[in-house]
Amino acid sequence: MERTTYCGLVNESYLEKEVVLKGWVQKRRDLGNLIFIDLRDREGIVQLVFSQEIGEQALHVAEELRTEFVVEIKGKVRSRKDDAINPKMKTGKVEVEVHEINVLNKAKTTPFYIEDDINVSDDLRLKYRYLDLRRPEMQNALIIRSKITQAVHRYLDDNKFINIETPYLTRSTPEGARDYLVPSRVYPGHFYALPQSPQLFKQLLMGAGFDRYYQVARCFRDEDLRGDRQPEFTQIDLEVSFMTAKEIQTMTEGLLKAVMKMALNVEIKTPIKRITWNEAMDRFGSDKPDIRFGMELKDMAAAVAKMGFKVFDQTLENGGQVKAIVVPGGTEKYSRKQIEAKQEYIKRFGAKGLAWVKVTSEGFSGPIAKFFDEEHVTTVKEIAGAKVGDLILFVADTRKVVADSLGYLRVAFAKELNIIDENEFAFVWVVDWPLFEYSEEFHRYIAAHHPFTMPNEEDVELLETEPHKAHAQSYDIVLNGYELGGGSIRIHQRDIQEKMFKALGFTKESAEKQFGWFMDALDFGFPPHGGLALGLDRFAMLLAKKDNIREVIAFPKNSKASEPLTNAPSKVATKQLDELGLEIEETN
Amino acid sequence: MERTTYCGLVNESYLEKEVVLKGWVQKRRDLGNLIFIDLRDREGIVQLVFSQEIGEQALHVAEELRTEFVVEIKGKVRSRKDDAINPKMKTGKVEVEVHEINVLNKAKTTPFYIEDDINVSDDLRLKYRYLDLRRPEMQNALIIRSKITQAVHRYLDDNKFINIETPYLTRSTPEGARDYLVPSRVYPGHFYALPQSPQLFKQLLMGAGFDRYYQVARCFRDEDLRGDRQPEFTQIDLEVSFMTAKEIQTMTEGLLKAVMKMALNVEIKTPIKRITWNEAMDRFGSDKPDIRFGMELKDMAAAVAKMGFKVFDQTLENGGQVKAIVVPGGTEKYSRKQIEAKQEYIKRFGAKGLAWVKVTSEGFSGPIAKFFDEEHVTTVKEIAGAKVGDLILFVADTRKVVADSLGYLRVAFAKELNIIDENEFAFVWVVDWPLFEYSEEFHRYIAAHHPFTMPNEEDVELLETEPHKAHAQSYDIVLNGYELGGGSIRIHQRDIQEKMFKALGFTKESAEKQFGWFMDALDFGFPPHGGLALGLDRFAMLLAKKDNIREVIAFPKNSKASEPLTNAPSKVATKQLDELGLEIEETN
Repeated sequence: MERTTYCGLVNESYLEKEVVLKGWVQKRRDLGNLIFIDLRDREGIVQLVFSQEIGEQALHVAEELRTEFVVEIKGKVRSRKDDAINPKMKTGKVEVEVHEINVLNKAKTTPFYIEDDINVSDDLRLKYRYLDLRRPEMQNALIIRSKITQAVHRYLDDNKFINIETPYLTRSTPEGARDYLVPSRVYPGHFYALPQSPQLFKQLLMGAGFDRYYQVARCFRDEDLRGDRQPEFTQIDLEVSFMTAKEIQTMTEGLLKAVMKMALNVEIKTPIKRITWNEAMDRFGSDKPDIRFGMELKDMAAAVAKMGFKVFDQTLENGGQVKAIVVPGGTEKYSRKQIEAKQEYIKRFGAKGLAWVKVTSEGFSGPIAKFFDEEHVTTVKEIAGAKVGDLILFVADTRKVVADSLGYLRVAFAKELNIIDENEFAFVWVVDWPLFEYSEEFHRYIAAHHPFTMPNEEDVELLETEPHKAHAQSYDIVLNGYELGGGSIRIHQRDIQEKMFKALGFTKESAEKQFGWFMDALDFGFPPHGGLALGLDRFAMLLAKKDNIREVIAFPKNSKASEPLTNAPSKVATKQLDELGLEIEETN
Repeated sequence: MERTTYCGLVNESYLEKEVVLKGWVQKRRDLGNLIFIDLRDREGIVQLVFSQEIGEQALHVAEELRTEFVVEIKGKVRSRKDDAINPKMKTGKVEVEVHEINVLNKAKTTPFYIEDDINVSDDLRLKYRYLDLRRPEMQNALIIRSKITQAVHRYLDDNKFINIETPYLTRSTPEGARDYLVPSRVYPGHFYALPQSPQLFKQLLMGAGFDRYYQVARCFRDEDLRGDRQPEFTQIDLEVSFMTAKEIQTMTEGLLKAVMKMALNVEIKTPIKRITWNEAMDRFGSDKPDIRFGMELKDMAAAVAKMGFKVFDQTLENGGQVKAIVVPGGTEKYSRKQIEAKQEYIKRFGAKGLAWVKVTSEGFSGPIAKFFDEEHVTTVKEIAGAKVGDLILFVADTRKVVADSLGYLRVAFAKELNIIDENEFAFVWVVDWPLFEYSEEFHRYIAAHHPFTMPNEEDVELLETEPHKAHAQSYDIVLNGYELGGGSIRIHQRDIQEKMFKALGFTKESAEKQFGWFMDALDFGFPPHGGLALGLDRFAMLLAKKDNIREVIAFPKNSKASEPLTNAPSKVATKQLDELGLEIEETN
């Protein structure tokens, strides 16, 4: 039998027609001489009817069916009776009278039901991933992911990008995150590394004159895992020659527009808003601001200066900041105890405390209300944009601590109060990043993006004097408070690249040893170029409205980087290690 | 300046218009007060003109330009004088009067010229791959490759396939070729393996109900390298549920049609011819026959039986074959010495000798001519389809040796005689393969495709009795004598899969240990399914008319699996090995 359509697509246009369907038994209702089967495939569910009158042999087969059996059926589509119409189902107005059925495969009882909102452990879901993926929400998530890549290919192909694959067996570079290594058999004691990104290869492709490159590329980082990290992840990676940062952003906006249309049928407005990194930190306390809601950070220095509240006064005297956010309607919703509980969360950012007042019709209330006289109350309310019933939260500290703390609280309160429109997709560019950031881990400045990022033209000379003051021709694209991707104009001249490595603490020799092969390439007519990479996993996660990238990856690793289905990683035969010239260290 | 078009696209439609171009200096002709520059980008070359009259400042800049400098120019397009028209160039009727030019980057002298047909070592080309790739033939090869993937995505997306990524960090399976291993840091002494293909994962996706899957997937095999093998290669991988082998082939033909159209603007005819594996071996002596030309193998048993030539007689008595091919016009083109030299080549297939006759107007000539009487001559000429001036080559041996030897000679002579139409693309399906083949290496039968291939329905019971006689529901797609890809209907029932493992020499325990996790999946309602994989590298190689897949891979490994540009694989820091719990074996 050749299938004529999918179960989920049977509708009134098929009335009185014969259809052949193939799928899985979702459930069976046996009324003796009448049996109803819900048959499921990737497009949805349709109701099958079996009876003596329709077909005796088919009825007998239906009697033996159990959940998840695979069957093919031939039958006629008919209208349901009015009282049997199910408005919740796409196919709810019709059903199929089955006169022929074949069981294609049987099924044992599955360890969990094939339905949405199951409540089983992640590891059980991963061990039986092939069953987990049968659930409509997982099918939908992977279909959205597929539509994203579909739009990406189509848009970039149409815009003269060339899809070029870069190597996965490449050279280890100790800079950055930890590499996954691959021992070489031909050269014992030597290793390939799996790429953390195709960065240098895509730059070389610009050196090779391809002008516009893209790739949907797997990347690998052997990092300690966090909620939304996986050992392997996928990047929509592109690079172009002879374009400015602004032009690359505009091109990317076209891509985002195409993706949103294809994946969700959502129209987004372009141009997408651009704000500088400084502005993002000042207004939202975050370099990946969620701009779906207000509650912006307001500078209170002018309003609270010399008010007599020591914490504020001293912070300002020491060159620090006092800033505030307003929690709308927070007066009633939060008790003193609940507010103070939030204080704990911001300690990790180095905040020493959280000051707050409730706005009442009489002025302010709360522990520090007494410091505010009538004029202070008026000015604070005005600058903060607060009204009666609101809660105002203050943090007084260095710029960074203030931003991190209030940036965190802004999102946390907004989520609790449900003031974020979950159906909105708010993109924003964050541009003009610092070129370097201070690494607490390495006690030195490291590249904020990577060492190949071009400084702003006017900042090139800072590389040799005050590199940490330099800003970069770099840009991140942010969606709903998540960094969706980022990019930059790259360095295409050897002398600037050498200065960059020097500013990063490389000696001439160590830079040459590690990146000499790349800097040599810059000597042979390298064009100005730049690019961008978008995180496909995160993009899919946001569009599928999931909270973990595992939910949009077919076979992800669990939180301990293992894969419960195939049981990878695993021990291997001694012969395999011998061929690689490797020994496993004895552990005591 | 914003580029208005590519150099290679400037034509008469731009006459008298201003253009902005960006590219590389291909060459400079300096006539003093008149300078011509050939400017190159990925689309081609256009001639620039500089003079005092057009622009003095631009002329001065042009004086300093050297090969491979990167420039941007603004200028006006004008017709060339009649005697200056270059019909070999796409842009040969026009040139650009440059009134503004900026040097974007300088270039040192390149180690080889940026032009086609260079004569330098492969390793030098790979070390400066970014320069090698600037050459038009390399640009063209990678653009063809990109167009193939473009067509693949478009066709499969349009046909409801879902693009799903499968893991690259997975479990090692000792079956098949050698795995690349990736040591785990979280579980010291344990290893991931890079996949040799997504085979089991794509089958699981059918178990998960995705119905139609595809992926352009990187695959990894740590094999000893041969001409057209690379440690990593790319597969166009697809799998579908509920379709027959024939339906999958028809679907694939649509894909091939789309690819040929997009990549080369070539229309191919469908349906593509199907021949069985037996027929391919009998007629062409090859399971990947080049059907662009005839010279088929003819069975000579009837014609030469009991002729008195011992080699033929004994072979036939022992159940062997005597077959022949005809080399058209071979009488004059090949001397006895040249023919006998060919004999050396077929010894590797186990052939003991090559018998031959030249067809003259008097009958046959050559060492064994005397064995043929008039009747033999007539019958042989008739069966072989030979005429005066042709050379007939005989091999007498087992079926396999005869096929391998004559199959080889057929192609070798056809190439030498230039009788193959190099502009033809001849696809053919080879179907109904044996399920097993005897491995000289392992001294046992191994799976001809892989252990998940479904036997022909009528051969399922042979699995338990005479497995080597079973044929499979498998199919290869062959292009111009190369295996472009292959696939099969897979086993979807546990009992058949168990029998298959048993026939391959697995014990119940060893099968369970290695593939238990997969066989468990077959218990939960696995649909009938099948699929196919096409080798992208080889496909691109054939369409770009190259003779090595390295020519269609941006950054390939050399013949010793190393990469001369980045110098991978390389030694790594002891710290990296310590974290993995690994030691390198001392070599004596």
